[in-house]
Amino acid sequence: MTLSHHFSNRAEQLKPNAIRSIGRRASAPGMIRFTAGNPSPTILPAEAMKPFLAQVVDKYGPDALQYGMTEGFTPLRELIASRTPHTNPEDVLLISGSQQAIDLTCKLFLDPGDKVAVAAPTYTGALSTFRVYGAEFLNVACDYEGMLPDSLEAALQQGPKLIYCIPNFMNPTGVDMSRERRQAVVDLARQYNVPILEDDPYGELRFVGSPQPTLYELAPEQVIYGGSYSKILAPGLRLGWLLAKEELMFPLVNAKQTSDLQSPTFTQMLVYEVMASGFLAEQIDRLRRFYHQQRSHLLEAMDQHLPEAVRYQAPAGGFFVWCELPAGMDAGVLVDEALAAGVAYVPGRPFFASDQGQNTLRLSYSSVPTVEMEEGIMRLAAVLRQHL
Amino acid sequence: MTLSHHFSNRAEQLKPNAIRSIGRRASAPGMIRFTAGNPSPTILPAEAMKPFLAQVVDKYGPDALQYGMTEGFTPLRELIASRTPHTNPEDVLLISGSQQAIDLTCKLFLDPGDKVAVAAPTYTGALSTFRVYGAEFLNVACDYEGMLPDSLEAALQQGPKLIYCIPNFMNPTGVDMSRERRQAVVDLARQYNVPILEDDPYGELRFVGSPQPTLYELAPEQVIYGGSYSKILAPGLRLGWLLAKEELMFPLVNAKQTSDLQSPTFTQMLVYEVMASGFLAEQIDRLRRFYHQQRSHLLEAMDQHLPEAVRYQAPAGGFFVWCELPAGMDAGVLVDEALAAGVAYVPGRPFFASDQGQNTLRLSYSSVPTVEMEEGIMRLAAVLRQHL
Repeated sequence: MTLSHHFSNRAEQLKPNAIRSIGRRASAPGMIRFTAGNPSPTILPAEAMKPFLAQVVDKYGPDALQYGMTEGFTPLRELIASRTPHTNPEDVLLISGSQQAIDLTCKLFLDPGDKVAVAAPTYTGALSTFRVYGAEFLNVACDYEGMLPDSLEAALQQGPKLIYCIPNFMNPTGVDMSRERRQAVVDLARQYNVPILEDDPYGELRFVGSPQPTLYELAPEQVIYGGSYSKILAPGLRLGWLLAKEELMFPLVNAKQTSDLQSPTFTQMLVYEVMASGFLAEQIDRLRRFYHQQRSHLLEAMDQHLPEAVRYQAPAGGFFVWCELPAGMDAGVLVDEALAAGVAYVPGRPFFASDQGQNTLRLSYSSVPTVEMEEGIMRLAAVLRQHL
Repeated sequence: MTLSHHFSNRAEQLKPNAIRSIGRRASAPGMIRFTAGNPSPTILPAEAMKPFLAQVVDKYGPDALQYGMTEGFTPLRELIASRTPHTNPEDVLLISGSQQAIDLTCKLFLDPGDKVAVAAPTYTGALSTFRVYGAEFLNVACDYEGMLPDSLEAALQQGPKLIYCIPNFMNPTGVDMSRERRQAVVDLARQYNVPILEDDPYGELRFVGSPQPTLYELAPEQVIYGGSYSKILAPGLRLGWLLAKEELMFPLVNAKQTSDLQSPTFTQMLVYEVMASGFLAEQIDRLRRFYHQQRSHLLEAMDQHLPEAVRYQAPAGGFFVWCELPAGMDAGVLVDEALAAGVAYVPGRPFFASDQGQNTLRLSYSSVPTVEMEEGIMRLAAVLRQHL
């Protein structure tokens, strides 16, 4: 006898993540994969972790294996606060990856039918979580500078509970939101008094231009900020941090407690040691150079081989190049041919909350060996040419 | 301008966990604390972890720092399955502590107003999570053998979505549910076709009697089982496992994906090595002997010093002794006097879904040094005597 008749209304939204699904379909040998937002294994600092792992045991002993406060390991909260403008240690909550910032924010804000303003396109993993909480979406149109203020204002006039935004090297478009747009977004959020959930896994991975202020820096009281060690240190640690001021932090900590009590003590101590030693800053420098090279290799191949009709822009940081095919082409259909031809990408459609973006796709350069990039792009170009 | 008017209906349920709150109040120096369900630091195997930590780096390299499947690290799923009756690797999901089993099960089953059948009393951290999902409670009366079948059936007739149960050394009462009651619970769950969420952090820590079957073993298709490495290895790792059959597992994996993508790869590999080497089994033997001694020291002091009017039973495993004071006494009021006298316990009231249990309290022997136990119980006895 089935139990599914007991499922909640949200259960129908519990669908596999589109990116993880395409990742599984792309596992054939010889496949050149522009799919994953994974750090390259060649740059993950496994061996370098060894002394830090031993150091955590030596320095903290059994405390490293014990329960800790839900808020997180105090020295790590202090260290993060000391490196973040307008931030005290009590504004910092350690979380299980920045995905959890999305989940906890939903727990705090969303009832079924509530509206969330999201960039079109945006991170599909965030859309999945919003959907599970019964959210309806207000699409905010974007250009190569980020969210369009007029479009955001139109959305705000419809009373959303939240604005979800990835200002730094947006997933999937790679767009670096301009300074003026960042200011416009926080000004509008203040004017309509709507909180912003700022998702920032890629902010440190800028290789062109000067750092821009986060939305949190521009309006700390208006923003829940989610940071992540996944892209700058190791996704396999599943650690991130959330910044928020007291009014929001207090219930967010309690939400975290109901989800998983706290993030791992051991991992927090490990990351504290890695940060305090200076290793993390050095690693971020290495990553910037590495991903800059990766991006340049990919763009070179794209410039040389892709049909003129494919539009894209060079990202200033992060992992992704976003491609627009001519209207009428469907990257979700073509992906089968691409997989058959030995190249994998992520179709753009799942990054949109509504039914659009069929002619878009995302290429990730983060983990593709440079020697495979040209061949991968040639395979993709051949598939596309057959349909132009 | 406040943002709290945007909060969800569930936000009012985002209150601090009662046990963690009393833990904070009990932090004065000299306090003898029977509050925490923490493993004793003297038995946490910090130094023993060192070779395993190095081994994870040596054996898995960058894979240990990379994303993995939401379901978990395949060799660990296989190992858990091989040691669990009626279980295939695909029935195993690695989770961030057994608290997450509760959260994910709520995500899958509960809409606001749905009913959950719970033991009275039961784990307060579970009640908190159920409340956040808008649950209403059906109390199931218990005795020293566990849930009373008549009371459970009366609850099932009111149409709950879930039965929540801790058969092994229930938190807070320490009750070891009898074989007959276990069978009665699964029979009733089958009859009414209601799923059981079985929470089992203490099952391996039996020091009296023979192992009993879990509810999952008795009715795998009817149960979501949450296991935890917190009490048998280290809570600071925040790792647990969930067992469920395909109908439930598929949406639970997707629920996990929206919560935090996956549990930490590194930690899963670490626990795999610790299990595969045989160390975990040896550690569990040590823990059984240790907690048995702890329990015996505490009971000796209680038998010697507590007033006759205080009722309690010796647990056969786990961390807790549950005390009933004479009717009319309020352990929630007396706790202030106890704290002033230098002894801390957890009042029983928060373990009940409804307003009852004022005359109950929980003592944990898991982490109190044996040399402090007698003094702690004498302090408690003196406070109680003043009110008898």
